[in-house]
Amino acid sequence: MLMDAISVIRTKRDRGRLTDEQIDWMIDAYTRGEVADEQMSSLAMAILLNGMDRAEIARWTAAMIKSGERMDFSSLPVPTADKHSTGGVGDKITLPLAPLVAACGAAVPQLSGRGLGHTGGTLDKLESIPGWRALLSNDEMMDVLRNVGSVICAAGDGLAPADKKLYALRDVTGTVEAIPLIASSIMSKKIAEGTGSLVLDVKVGSGAFMKNIADARELASTMVGLGTDHGVKTVALLTDMSTPLGLTAGNALEVRESVEVLAGGGPADVVELTIALAREMLDAAGIKDADPAKALADGSAMDHWRRMIIAQGGDPDATLPVAREQHVVTASASGVLTALDAYAVGVSAWRLGAGRARKEDPVQAGAGIEMHAKPGDTVTAGQPLMTLHTDTPEKFDYALKALEGGVEISPAGTAFTPNPIVLDRIA
Amino acid sequence: MLMDAISVIRTKRDRGRLTDEQIDWMIDAYTRGEVADEQMSSLAMAILLNGMDRAEIARWTAAMIKSGERMDFSSLPVPTADKHSTGGVGDKITLPLAPLVAACGAAVPQLSGRGLGHTGGTLDKLESIPGWRALLSNDEMMDVLRNVGSVICAAGDGLAPADKKLYALRDVTGTVEAIPLIASSIMSKKIAEGTGSLVLDVKVGSGAFMKNIADARELASTMVGLGTDHGVKTVALLTDMSTPLGLTAGNALEVRESVEVLAGGGPADVVELTIALAREMLDAAGIKDADPAKALADGSAMDHWRRMIIAQGGDPDATLPVAREQHVVTASASGVLTALDAYAVGVSAWRLGAGRARKEDPVQAGAGIEMHAKPGDTVTAGQPLMTLHTDTPEKFDYALKALEGGVEISPAGTAFTPNPIVLDRIA
Repeated sequence: MLMDAISVIRTKRDRGRLTDEQIDWMIDAYTRGEVADEQMSSLAMAILLNGMDRAEIARWTAAMIKSGERMDFSSLPVPTADKHSTGGVGDKITLPLAPLVAACGAAVPQLSGRGLGHTGGTLDKLESIPGWRALLSNDEMMDVLRNVGSVICAAGDGLAPADKKLYALRDVTGTVEAIPLIASSIMSKKIAEGTGSLVLDVKVGSGAFMKNIADARELASTMVGLGTDHGVKTVALLTDMSTPLGLTAGNALEVRESVEVLAGGGPADVVELTIALAREMLDAAGIKDADPAKALADGSAMDHWRRMIIAQGGDPDATLPVAREQHVVTASASGVLTALDAYAVGVSAWRLGAGRARKEDPVQAGAGIEMHAKPGDTVTAGQPLMTLHTDTPEKFDYALKALEGGVEISPAGTAFTPNPIVLDRIA
Repeated sequence: MLMDAISVIRTKRDRGRLTDEQIDWMIDAYTRGEVADEQMSSLAMAILLNGMDRAEIARWTAAMIKSGERMDFSSLPVPTADKHSTGGVGDKITLPLAPLVAACGAAVPQLSGRGLGHTGGTLDKLESIPGWRALLSNDEMMDVLRNVGSVICAAGDGLAPADKKLYALRDVTGTVEAIPLIASSIMSKKIAEGTGSLVLDVKVGSGAFMKNIADARELASTMVGLGTDHGVKTVALLTDMSTPLGLTAGNALEVRESVEVLAGGGPADVVELTIALAREMLDAAGIKDADPAKALADGSAMDHWRRMIIAQGGDPDATLPVAREQHVVTASASGVLTALDAYAVGVSAWRLGAGRARKEDPVQAGAGIEMHAKPGDTVTAGQPLMTLHTDTPEKFDYALKALEGGVEISPAGTAFTPNPIVLDRIA
């Protein structure tokens, strides 16, 4: 069958449906370099503005999976369960969650990414642990998974290469924010990875990609449908990202907080979400009798964490890096803290050096923000609200600018109910 | 001011207005190669789907003009008048029109293009005249204009280079059909060319770019507005392109027909449109007392034609190339010819070798189609309807396929009124 990029682009531009053959050809020809970047970006904009229906998204996802290898965990003696978060500020949940779910009897093959923009990346966080390696061969990954029960590492180049190329293109062409393309990007990697079940944490709020619950619900149900159609048991939680998760945003700072959770402590919201996601993963994997709260309390989750870090070359007892300079932000008035905006904190931490502007930039292990109060807390004028950490103190002013308007203190006695962590569940 | 391509793309993607600064920066950075093709194509698709308002189109056009040089004809002793056609099948009007208007006292600096797709190119047609050169330096062009009064040549590389780059990009990214981009592309070249007045021939119908009169009217009024805003007196005629103009489609075939018109003969529709456009050009140039019909009849237009061809190296008396093979298409029934579709004839002539599929392809000088009847004519079964000409007879079948469904013969006595040539006038 004769195909050309222009006729595919025109179909979507003119609000038509792409046929299976058009989608298969386009993804394959783009991966091979026969379709040019300027043709794919024009199609991506047409998809963003004119949409794709469920069947088109499914075929698009399948074509991206087919562009590379698929992993297979069927030789493992236990069921596999994975989790994906759409990204938020202070979202370190993967760190305690993976060893916790392994301690409860599932295998967790957690392929993760690096941060870009104001949301941090799981691999960046773990790399603040001296010696820890994100890059494993497929065989090494399988060994860690078999011996420890959980592994957190970078996705190999062989997994959905079409997505890798398309993601980089969308990033520079203003076409990131298309639900069909977001959903197919995430799900093509997760399905190719070969997990048996998947729990999606779809963030909603200022610090998230999806600012409103309707968009988040559409994205979640699209992804749940894709997973289910490909035989992966998939569930999504919509969770609040109007304020940061926990009391830290930054790489080593978040590792420290994760270890507190694994030790049975840590901020209530992080513990609540970690346990909620663990229950969903275990349910999806068909493990009914495990108790994640107990595994946090009895040290078995911590034991799995230590073994996982060691298996990937890290030293779980090493001192974590600390930034060279600190700056304390104090409360400007007494009253109730009624807002601590996730986007403001995320951008500020990013400017301090916790994140990167371009893929090739390094991140500072110690940079970020420690929060000393959460929305709903009573505060007194002059008390510390946040501590900013950086190796590049010339960035303090720029980071403080990002916080402007992000902190709201209301008169004492103002009624305030924080958002629940879990807003909805889609299965 | 800090600018980046992604924020410009996002503005238009989210249905916003582009600011003057955004437009100026984007066009300049694209011309310099700082903005990548994949970014410009994504913006072009967003413009196609979300539109631009009048002020945005005006600024976009101005930025493209500023990307290169501007020509200046103010040293000429007579007013300048130019004409642009949006392209049709058998549209050879520029050939008799330019020397005719020059014979009536205006200077005609006609920068023309080559054909791409099913519509022929003026330069391709003239190149069938032995020795004739399309490429002139600015000085040579000025000399011909001064000495003869009209010149038809290729636009130099210095004229609106942003448009040149963007046009080639749109051609491969499915973003040609955007009225703001079509209008700014045409008008940036015509305004940079420096003509004092301009008459636009906006074609409507199956063989034209604009298939319906509403789109054609929108394009015409956008271009008239742009010209007027830049001090170029601009008028548009909307003209019929449901059936080919005249009785020929092809390079040498159309030159032959043009010479017939200049000799005072030729098909009625070609004569009518040539005179209508000549009157508009002369009016726009402020020349009120000239009579184009007389200049065709008294040989003065033909005299200008011969001098113009000679000035550009051509021999007006040379025998024109003839294709090696002919195939006659006959009427399948007796009755009234009620349709001879412009698009069908255009594609068929293109397949015979009159046009090119890619910019670098050659064209056959002798290839094309001679028509022996026009819509409204009475025909007898078996009489010749068309003669197909080509140097590559293996293409006859492929060319005949394009004609399928393009010819309609209705029972004798069927009432049929051909479309008028000029459908509307916009000033």
